[in-house]
Amino acid sequence: MASRRRLSAGAEIAGIAQYDLKILNPGDIVINVEGAFIVDEDQVDGRLTPPDTRDIALPHHTGKVSHIAVDIGGTLAKVVYFTQNKHGKGGRLNFTKFESSKIDECIDFLVSLIKRNGSNGSETTDSTDNDGSTIQHHIVATGGGSYKFYDRMRGRLGSNVSVSREDEMECLISGLDFFITQIPEEVFCYSESNPMSFPSRPPNKYPCLLVNMGSGVSMLKVLGPRKFVRVGGSSLGGGTLWGLLSLLTDAGSYDEMLEMAATGDNSNVDMLVGDIYGTDYARIGLKASTIASSFGKVFKKAREEPDHSKKQSLFDGGDISRSLLYAISNNIGQIAYLQAQNHQLEHIYFGGSYIRGHPQTMHTLSYAINFWSKGEKTAYFLRHEGYLGAVGAFMQTKPTDWIDGN
Amino acid sequence: MASRRRLSAGAEIAGIAQYDLKILNPGDIVINVEGAFIVDEDQVDGRLTPPDTRDIALPHHTGKVSHIAVDIGGTLAKVVYFTQNKHGKGGRLNFTKFESSKIDECIDFLVSLIKRNGSNGSETTDSTDNDGSTIQHHIVATGGGSYKFYDRMRGRLGSNVSVSREDEMECLISGLDFFITQIPEEVFCYSESNPMSFPSRPPNKYPCLLVNMGSGVSMLKVLGPRKFVRVGGSSLGGGTLWGLLSLLTDAGSYDEMLEMAATGDNSNVDMLVGDIYGTDYARIGLKASTIASSFGKVFKKAREEPDHSKKQSLFDGGDISRSLLYAISNNIGQIAYLQAQNHQLEHIYFGGSYIRGHPQTMHTLSYAINFWSKGEKTAYFLRHEGYLGAVGAFMQTKPTDWIDGN
Repeated sequence: MASRRRLSAGAEIAGIAQYDLKILNPGDIVINVEGAFIVDEDQVDGRLTPPDTRDIALPHHTGKVSHIAVDIGGTLAKVVYFTQNKHGKGGRLNFTKFESSKIDECIDFLVSLIKRNGSNGSETTDSTDNDGSTIQHHIVATGGGSYKFYDRMRGRLGSNVSVSREDEMECLISGLDFFITQIPEEVFCYSESNPMSFPSRPPNKYPCLLVNMGSGVSMLKVLGPRKFVRVGGSSLGGGTLWGLLSLLTDAGSYDEMLEMAATGDNSNVDMLVGDIYGTDYARIGLKASTIASSFGKVFKKAREEPDHSKKQSLFDGGDISRSLLYAISNNIGQIAYLQAQNHQLEHIYFGGSYIRGHPQTMHTLSYAINFWSKGEKTAYFLRHEGYLGAVGAFMQTKPTDWIDGN
Repeated sequence: MASRRRLSAGAEIAGIAQYDLKILNPGDIVINVEGAFIVDEDQVDGRLTPPDTRDIALPHHTGKVSHIAVDIGGTLAKVVYFTQNKHGKGGRLNFTKFESSKIDECIDFLVSLIKRNGSNGSETTDSTDNDGSTIQHHIVATGGGSYKFYDRMRGRLGSNVSVSREDEMECLISGLDFFITQIPEEVFCYSESNPMSFPSRPPNKYPCLLVNMGSGVSMLKVLGPRKFVRVGGSSLGGGTLWGLLSLLTDAGSYDEMLEMAATGDNSNVDMLVGDIYGTDYARIGLKASTIASSFGKVFKKAREEPDHSKKQSLFDGGDISRSLLYAISNNIGQIAYLQAQNHQLEHIYFGGSYIRGHPQTMHTLSYAINFWSKGEKTAYFLRHEGYLGAVGAFMQTKPTDWIDGN
């Protein structure tokens, strides 16, 4: 086991021991990430689409992998696990997710993975290796749920499965580093004409700002592959959008809300500069189409309907979805810009399960960064956006002095 | 008429001619602000309450005032006018407001003021002076509505009433300067133990950040009494809160929503750090009670009710109001801090009609500034919070080259 400098609790700037291409993992097995690439077998019409669960091939990895990583956030539990190729060397990283509120489904899945193949893809039906010896399995857990559901996981997993917990922020930057340094065509920029353009030369990776958008938002100033400080965050994130839209529209899922937003017209609910001025406010450079107040037209219209239960039907669900999607994305974009400006960071990486490959969301975030920074800062996205923490946990060395406490 | 350096349209930093205790106003009359004070005749239980329409006495003013100022925003139209004392010299500034959507009521009020007393408080029944000569009345209008409703105002006001328009941002800082330099006990700080403490010595007034919170939010870096730059803003403001709460609660007015918020418990709808971790996230200093995701608990609860029309009834209006009040106030506070940090500004003044003297709102804004700045920056409030633009317009010199165009 490699030695590792541990962090003092609450330390603002965390220094972590040097990073290597071959990473010691919790099963004491070196993951060989050389030549890793995204498997694009579900490529459609010659165009790369960004579903974040696409496999990552690890063609040169040979060792047995007996660990699985899980990142349990406020809303989603993300799982990363390895399957060995049936023929020849190499294997794949697999990505899947569950709702945190259905954590038992997630734990069932972990159990089935362990039972099925000992987590290494070989077709055994119990948790013994091909030579008959018992495999010591390992779950590396991160995110708040690794605390909240620790006892539940431990209770459901057999005695031959150990569970360790890794710090959520450390995993995020470890995962970010893996994606931006090891995986070709993982990082992309968004523009309307080219929704997924890969930077021709990789940008200077550090320092950068990582904006992780889940139920809430965390912003990390990342100085190097294992050195970071959490500079801020926002409680206005995916959980806010999802929560508000579940009351204000009849959409059944988050993706359905995003689909509705695509056809909506926010100007039916937002108060634009033109609604106040009747024209541009040219003096300070605000166009008539600029949103002055999100949802700013709603109160007046709603008041005209005395029956409260009918107020909502005055508004189109798509208009509402688009307005709130803009509001929250713009807001994250502005705060990210201000944080990047304060800390003199040029590159801003947006991760987390908020985006879901949704073009309007990426457009709004990119536009906000470009607008506020006058083109001096760039927004980058990641195809495995939701899995930074989980893949970081998968790649983490096993902590020795921070489990079960502190 | 005093000469005045005019601004080039779109100039980012506006230089305005020097400010004097006696200000030339649009009626060519000097307003004497010497010895001005807030009239606290509605003081209750020995405690000052902050209704923002309290009169300001101008004990030394002697000249006739023939102008009225109106600031027509996206939601509210604010009016400032002068009434002369019946006996002896001096008079008062009066403050009142209307909904912008009922602009005709506002114009009726302006007409009645002009008819009643020629705007100077003398008891004439028509618009002639006591000596029988016709008074030339003047409306100084600002805010977007001064453009949108210009023709309507002109059409309703007689030929003896002229209407000029002043830039909204210039009026804001002109009004801010009046309040912070001329009016004792106008500026206050908020704390739970002392909701209205007046700084014992006035703070260094410039440079400062002015955060004007109306339907939307504008942030101005103010370098001096007439020198400023608009550094940013947010579409998440009073209009957003008002709009969302009008659909999500059965409150009939904004003040009713604020009352509901006072008794609500946001932890029934917000996802707290403790909900995710089961405990503090001590490592990065986040307490279990910290809001991780505003409205983050709503989706899951709402999903359990299949009938969409009944989903809202799962939640208490007070809980919802408090959650959204926190979310938007916290967000404004954080952006204000980041802007102040970027521009190295220590003092932050919060104005606009968003606050309405509501303790939780001021607490949240003060707390956010104190939390993010680690106590290095201070939040200041103004008792006439909603009237910065209108009083600024009232005090403005008459523009000579920016009316009716540009």
